[in-house]
Amino acid sequence: MIVVMKAKASETEFKKVIERIKQENLDVHISKGKEVRIIGVVGDVRRIEPEVLQAFDGVERVIRILHPFKLASRDFKPENTTINVDGVIIGGGKFIVSAGPCAVEGEEMLTEVAFLAKKCGASILRGGIFKPRTSPYSFQGLGLDGLEILQRVKEKTGLPIITEIMSPEHVGLISQYVDIFQIGARNMQNFPLLQAVGRTEKPVLLKRGLMASGEEWLQAAEYVLSEGNPNVILCERGIRTFEGYTRNTLDLSIVPVIKKLSHLPVFVDPSHGTGHWDLVTPMAMGALAVGADGIMVEVHPNPEKAFSDGPQSLKPKVFAEMMQQLAKAAEAFNRPLPFSSERITIPGNETQKGS
Amino acid sequence: MIVVMKAKASETEFKKVIERIKQENLDVHISKGKEVRIIGVVGDVRRIEPEVLQAFDGVERVIRILHPFKLASRDFKPENTTINVDGVIIGGGKFIVSAGPCAVEGEEMLTEVAFLAKKCGASILRGGIFKPRTSPYSFQGLGLDGLEILQRVKEKTGLPIITEIMSPEHVGLISQYVDIFQIGARNMQNFPLLQAVGRTEKPVLLKRGLMASGEEWLQAAEYVLSEGNPNVILCERGIRTFEGYTRNTLDLSIVPVIKKLSHLPVFVDPSHGTGHWDLVTPMAMGALAVGADGIMVEVHPNPEKAFSDGPQSLKPKVFAEMMQQLAKAAEAFNRPLPFSSERITIPGNETQKGS
Amino acid sequence: MIVVMKAKASETEFKKVIERIKQENLDVHISKGKEVRIIGVVGDVRRIEPEVLQAFDGVERVIRILHPFKLASRDFKPENTTINVDGVIIGGGKFIVSAGPCAVEGEEMLTEVAFLAKKCGASILRGGIFKPRTSPYSFQGLGLDGLEILQRVKEKTGLPIITEIMSPEHVGLISQYVDIFQIGARNMQNFPLLQAVGRTEKPVLLKRGLMASGEEWLQAAEYVLSEGNPNVILCERGIRTFEGYTRNTLDLSIVPVIKKLSHLPVFVDPSHGTGHWDLVTPMAMGALAVGADGIMVEVHPNPEKAFSDGPQSLKPKVFAEMMQQLAKAAEAFNRPLPFSSERITIPGNETQKGS
Amino acid sequence: MIVVMKAKASETEFKKVIERIKQENLDVHISKGKEVRIIGVVGDVRRIEPEVLQAFDGVERVIRILHPFKLASRDFKPENTTINVDGVIIGGGKFIVSAGPCAVEGEEMLTEVAFLAKKCGASILRGGIFKPRTSPYSFQGLGLDGLEILQRVKEKTGLPIITEIMSPEHVGLISQYVDIFQIGARNMQNFPLLQAVGRTEKPVLLKRGLMASGEEWLQAAEYVLSEGNPNVILCERGIRTFEGYTRNTLDLSIVPVIKKLSHLPVFVDPSHGTGHWDLVTPMAMGALAVGADGIMVEVHPNPEKAFSDGPQSLKPKVFAEMMQQLAKAAEAFNRPLPFSSERITIPGNETQKGS
Repeated sequence: MIVVMKAKASETEFKKVIERIKQENLDVHISKGKEVRIIGVVGDVRRIEPEVLQAFDGVERVIRILHPFKLASRDFKPENTTINVDGVIIGGGKFIVSAGPCAVEGEEMLTEVAFLAKKCGASILRGGIFKPRTSPYSFQGLGLDGLEILQRVKEKTGLPIITEIMSPEHVGLISQYVDIFQIGARNMQNFPLLQAVGRTEKPVLLKRGLMASGEEWLQAAEYVLSEGNPNVILCERGIRTFEGYTRNTLDLSIVPVIKKLSHLPVFVDPSHGTGHWDLVTPMAMGALAVGADGIMVEVHPNPEKAFSDGPQSLKPKVFAEMMQQLAKAAEAFNRPLPFSSERITIPGNETQKGS
Repeated sequence: MIVVMKAKASETEFKKVIERIKQENLDVHISKGKEVRIIGVVGDVRRIEPEVLQAFDGVERVIRILHPFKLASRDFKPENTTINVDGVIIGGGKFIVSAGPCAVEGEEMLTEVAFLAKKCGASILRGGIFKPRTSPYSFQGLGLDGLEILQRVKEKTGLPIITEIMSPEHVGLISQYVDIFQIGARNMQNFPLLQAVGRTEKPVLLKRGLMASGEEWLQAAEYVLSEGNPNVILCERGIRTFEGYTRNTLDLSIVPVIKKLSHLPVFVDPSHGTGHWDLVTPMAMGALAVGADGIMVEVHPNPEKAFSDGPQSLKPKVFAEMMQQLAKAAEAFNRPLPFSSERITIPGNETQKGS
Repeated sequence: MIVVMKAKASETEFKKVIERIKQENLDVHISKGKEVRIIGVVGDVRRIEPEVLQAFDGVERVIRILHPFKLASRDFKPENTTINVDGVIIGGGKFIVSAGPCAVEGEEMLTEVAFLAKKCGASILRGGIFKPRTSPYSFQGLGLDGLEILQRVKEKTGLPIITEIMSPEHVGLISQYVDIFQIGARNMQNFPLLQAVGRTEKPVLLKRGLMASGEEWLQAAEYVLSEGNPNVILCERGIRTFEGYTRNTLDLSIVPVIKKLSHLPVFVDPSHGTGHWDLVTPMAMGALAVGADGIMVEVHPNPEKAFSDGPQSLKPKVFAEMMQQLAKAAEAFNRPLPFSSERITIPGNETQKGS
Repeated sequence: MIVVMKAKASETEFKKVIERIKQENLDVHISKGKEVRIIGVVGDVRRIEPEVLQAFDGVERVIRILHPFKLASRDFKPENTTINVDGVIIGGGKFIVSAGPCAVEGEEMLTEVAFLAKKCGASILRGGIFKPRTSPYSFQGLGLDGLEILQRVKEKTGLPIITEIMSPEHVGLISQYVDIFQIGARNMQNFPLLQAVGRTEKPVLLKRGLMASGEEWLQAAEYVLSEGNPNVILCERGIRTFEGYTRNTLDLSIVPVIKKLSHLPVFVDPSHGTGHWDLVTPMAMGALAVGADGIMVEVHPNPEKAFSDGPQSLKPKVFAEMMQQLAKAAEAFNRPLPFSSERITIPGNETQKGS
């Protein structure tokens, strides 16, 4: 940590800052430039927060040198984290696809999508039972009633299940039914929730908040890790910018950044990240190309009847075509899907109209 | 609601959309332009969500005409909402100041700040017991233990209390101790929490999320209102932009926008909104000038020893000077503080060094 | 300047960086922490750019300590810059209003607005002859033909003139007709243009770019100043964010930030900053309250017939009412308008309908 | 175009708007909903700008239905535009790489890079002679003196040349030396410059502005096209967001959006888009995967000695490795480089240290 004093800081102010640093058994290196004095703080600097020193009179600014996360960092754990979900290995070199409807709307539909997803090479079934909706008047999901549906569909297809959790009090119940907890973008800094899932051993897919920097995202992961749960999967799903042609701006460049800084696996959600079904395939290909460990996509047998997120859901045939392309490209990138691309057949039903 | 069809949409696609609209007992007005066909949806359009129609083949885009909130809108309730908190009237024309430390650190300090705040014209005491912190290693607040401190300081000073709530399960307990629930920016879309406070009658100060549009903010308010609690105060506290000289960008222009669209009172938090104590006074003046109903500011007897947010906290003397200026200006704007500016005396202790 | 080495940087890499720094006759202070080594660069550090050192192997990041501008900084020139435009003193403590139509549409209209502006207390007449328009098919302004109109209206009213300049090659001609050059937001980093106006002595009003940080804005001012022209007025006009209720987000907090860092006067443009005429008055009041030296507003006798920017233009009566309020408030803030508020009479014609 | 009237708009206001629309020989469709009246404007609506109607009393908002660009749109010209630059076909299905140093620093270095670029499969040589720099004290490029160097290196290698142009007055001279004009991000809305290059027939690579929406970018292209020059290549180079780990946020999702809306070829610049050399390779792969027609990258024989942009420049060996990977992947995507990947040999000199 480095403390930059103001040009006009007095000797007393300067000394007070040093005194405060030494209270924490930290050492100082002083560097006196032409215009300003700089104090380098040496030792276990995580013991004092920058804002503590920033509040002192005479301090211009305080600059953190070390990353504000530890367990999530590659310095702490150089080798990639791999997570085994019912035999599906995430972060282990294969490109993993999680697919399913935005929301669980009923057992029949979910079963249909699940078998399709499986046939096309997806390894995990997604389906929301709690839907965080901007408006209180929108469909909020089936709630806990959906859990039994998820369980039965898992039994039928063998696909592990991921679903979103919104309240700490549901952790116990939901963990009996699903294989991966999803923390949604709006809850990325819901700290009581992060702590609650951190106290389990179940894998947690942590979506990046709409407004979260990569650094804050890794700190949110740190909340889970520091409670003892090492099984965190990060998922980029678009950030908010001024661009209006897409619902969010899918930040694919954060993927190689995170892979450099952290050992955690990184997924990409091209459905929420773009908001338009016809952008899903190219952005899924992009996710593969920039080094993501997998993707999460929305598929619906009939997007026009979806209770939510219809515009970004793929129809079965479009999904199958995407999976074929993806499987082929993944082989070229040496990160094949767990299933061979040859197995994927394109269903005969209607395609989505180009736009 | 207006549905714009793609130039190449087929007759069948066009008819399917109309059919779907009519299923909801809504009427359509069709407008055939040179290049595209447009369907105007007439009736109680809130019964169908834009995304449902957006998912149909042949639809270019769906445009919402009416605001996606109702109870929060001025169309629904033209007159200003006023909220009586222990005799302090919010939204009634007087400029209300809520002041106090970022976090409750102990009874002695809180008492000192509370008496200062009161003497200088503040009407409400703020103080956090749960602090949502970006890092799991930062001070997280005293938790529920702080409630008794808040209660005793309220008894001593008579000032009503506002504190942040972070979990739905705390609503019952905290409501016995405090006068206003604060929902922090990171929880603006924590829908279970909004619903939980919406089921009480206690006033709720709802901070705007770092990346929330004004529309989403009013929809979050709608979550509280639609559960039956009409006592919502909105609080602008800065949005996230690319600007680095301030911690956030305090969006003062949202104040007159919200006053136009909604009947709810609007506060401004210049402490969190800027992150620097020396910007608090000018931005507090700005908040008054653009029409806010009040402000919320952080004061600390010794910012250098604050457990959190020291850099943006005002020292007592600086706070008192701000209150004097504010009281004078508020009179010129015909929105006086509840207390006369003449009553405010500046304490003798040290000022903060200019920057 | 501080160079943070990577944890794994080799001794050779470390030495190469130091060698490069010493080539510039700069000194180094080395600080060896637990995890990383840090090199403090001492001396006239502006001789070497951070990116030069950033490119070295083994360098994690380079942190600039001093501001990247000099002539614009208050360290360099502590006292406020005042600019005398035909007797109107900008930056001297009085609150200056520049008003007029977005574009010069004809002599008659401009004369009418100019007399109104003058009567209501404005000191400078604005009017564009070149209009930078997003679409090539929009009205582009009268061009150089408008210069004579500006000159004649100035002769009639005595008001100094400000107009936007878009090409370096027009500097010579336009400077014969107008009193202040305006550099528009889209040209804030049009460096050849900044250099061209920097080679004159005419005041330059430099609008902040839609996505320019405060630091980049001051560096753009430095382009003008470093060519020898000290007469720069900065003008905040809104930055681009995700918020859709306003055309831009007027960043009033940048005003006290700039006043702290720089000696240059700062204006605010609430017309472009919000895009809606009914937000102009509150934001003009806000600009005064946060410490701006003046404002720039759009007035049009008949916004419905304006060739551009009609929605944000004030009708004469609304403008006069704003000026009355502003004059009163400015007195309360001890920064009066050059003209007394009592002089302002409200014209009888129609007002704009509330929204 | 659709005009939404305010709920309280009077009959007179309603009629005035209709009257104004009819003045342009446009037709109206009126749709009277429960709460508001809506006017659909039918005919050649580009004859009236939304803001004209927005300025009318009683108008809530005006919604544009058609895209505000014409020549750039795929509706106007369904087939892809291909541009032949000295035999290099851009937009014709092959993946084109443009490479070279940020700035031309001298003939020897440029020659070295050019031969390397060619050997590794690049088809176009980039090199700036005018460098738009944020600070007036940074290296500004060799200026027009660099033109002869560019010409001689072109003669030696046969690679066509692209360089940035910053002033309309340079168009004539520069066009004699180079093959493609580059318009930099900061000049994307420098309309006189767009018009000047639009009056030539030389290809124009138009970078997206840091703050430009996709719609504004296509409107900027329209400025060039509408002057008669059909040879526009768009180039995404990152937009400004709050994310700090990358210099900009490279918006790869805009690529498939633009390909859908427009017939123009789209490039991606992963060097400026990320600001870090070690992100260039993954983002170049991403650009290919999402459907870009080519990329533009910075290569420097010795980034530590680069006059500008060293941190984002690739060393020769890293560049060669990227080209090998890219060539292989491009084949898998059926959009091969013009040169076979087998031709690329990796030079023996040092690699860049991982980060």
